[in-house]
Amino acid sequence: MDIRELQKKVIEFRDARDWAQYHNPKDLAISLMLEASELLEVFQWKNLQEVEAIKSDPDERRKVKGELGDVFIYALNMYYVFGFDPSEVILEKLEINEKKYPVEKAKGNARKYTET
Amino acid sequence: MDIRELQKKVIEFRDARDWAQYHNPKDLAISLMLEASELLEVFQWKNLQEVEAIKSDPDERRKVKGELGDVFIYALNMYYVFGFDPSEVILEKLEINEKKYPVEKAKGNARKYTET
Amino acid sequence: MDIRELQKKVIEFRDARDWAQYHNPKDLAISLMLEASELLEVFQWKNLQEVEAIKSDPDERRKVKGELGDVFIYALNMYYVFGFDPSEVILEKLEINEKKYPVEKAKGNARKYTET
Amino acid sequence: MDIRELQKKVIEFRDARDWAQYHNPKDLAISLMLEASELLEVFQWKNLQEVEAIKSDPDERRKVKGELGDVFIYALNMYYVFGFDPSEVILEKLEINEKKYPVEKAKGNARKYTET
Repeated sequence: MDIRELQKKVIEFRDARDWAQYHNPKDLAISLMLEASELLEVFQWKNLQEVEAIKSDPDERRKVKGELGDVFIYALNMYYVFGFDPSEVILEKLEINEKKYPVEKAKGNARKYTET
Repeated sequence: MDIRELQKKVIEFRDARDWAQYHNPKDLAISLMLEASELLEVFQWKNLQEVEAIKSDPDERRKVKGELGDVFIYALNMYYVFGFDPSEVILEKLEINEKKYPVEKAKGNARKYTET
Repeated sequence: MDIRELQKKVIEFRDARDWAQYHNPKDLAISLMLEASELLEVFQWKNLQEVEAIKSDPDERRKVKGELGDVFIYALNMYYVFGFDPSEVILEKLEINEKKYPVEKAKGNARKYTET
Repeated sequence: MDIRELQKKVIEFRDARDWAQYHNPKDLAISLMLEASELLEVFQWKNLQEVEAIKSDPDERRKVKGELGDVFIYALNMYYVFGFDPSEVILEKLEINEKKYPVEKAKGNARKYTET
């Protein structure tokens, strides 16, 4: 599905509830962060084996799906408030990252990650 | 642009660098959360007037765009690792939210938000 | 109460449950962050008037108290794992901040905050 | 050092800069959360061996110390704004946790953590 179509649905949902009045960027950023925290909570105190096991656990998968959905919905609301085109945001960022992490240097190199 | 096409580009970027080995869901969730925090940092200590002003400040807009791009990229990587279809995740979550926040009750009601 | 005495109680609690084995710094940092998020959640979607009202609402006060307690407990556990003296950490940081935010420049200046 | 004495220093620092005006609980909670994120960032993408190595790396130790100091300072500011006694907050929370995680059930049991 086109990402702008998804965004359209997200904004229709918002407007049907007259929620635009609450959607200032600061409160949206707080909510996005809180959903990201709930996603992280799924993996709290889990070692890597337990983390792998979550991938095939139907209840945990449902939880991850729900939290990821919330992250996306808040992100699309934030784009809208700023008038950004979602595809453009992602493509531009990938270009920036291409320069920041050139293949020849970053290949298989975890270090590159941690230096950001 | 179709969201699966965007995801394809994100995964190509990952694979060109051989980074799948680092992309366990726990570390992806940490990184997603850290990017969401950097987004929130743009609005730290700002009152609502200052928050509004950010919308028309080119430098701040660029910063918001970059952080939102990172949030999206990590989210698309997480979807991939779980084998979720991004559109489906969003549409399913919107359906859940339709039931949780029925229009007649949630209209213009900030309270509904805070009770989640 | 002396902060080292408080820390002693926190570590006794940990050791009575044989939980030192889970207390690597990464998982402690995740948990500290998640508790800080739960604290922030109390204020989600609230405007400044509603935020003020929380200060005198017994239920909300209890919630804030509980989350702040968790933040402190994880922080004291983290200090312990690194062998830091809690008082020293705070006093050193205040000294650093004295230089970073000299009174004459930072007085009544919100800007100073946002430039960090 | 007594924790109230530490708090006194933190509040003196705040008042010398006339910063009480910015210290509403919501913005304090945001800042506390952002500092907790910066602490977590030290461990981003690190595996458990690398995480252990941080404990004996002077530069990383300094970074952890600084971020932990900020977490504590914001927490003490938050206590002050709510009029909580810091020792009381911690002792009360330990009592609550004693009931939530009784020694006989929680001993050496990571599961207990994740069920919260």
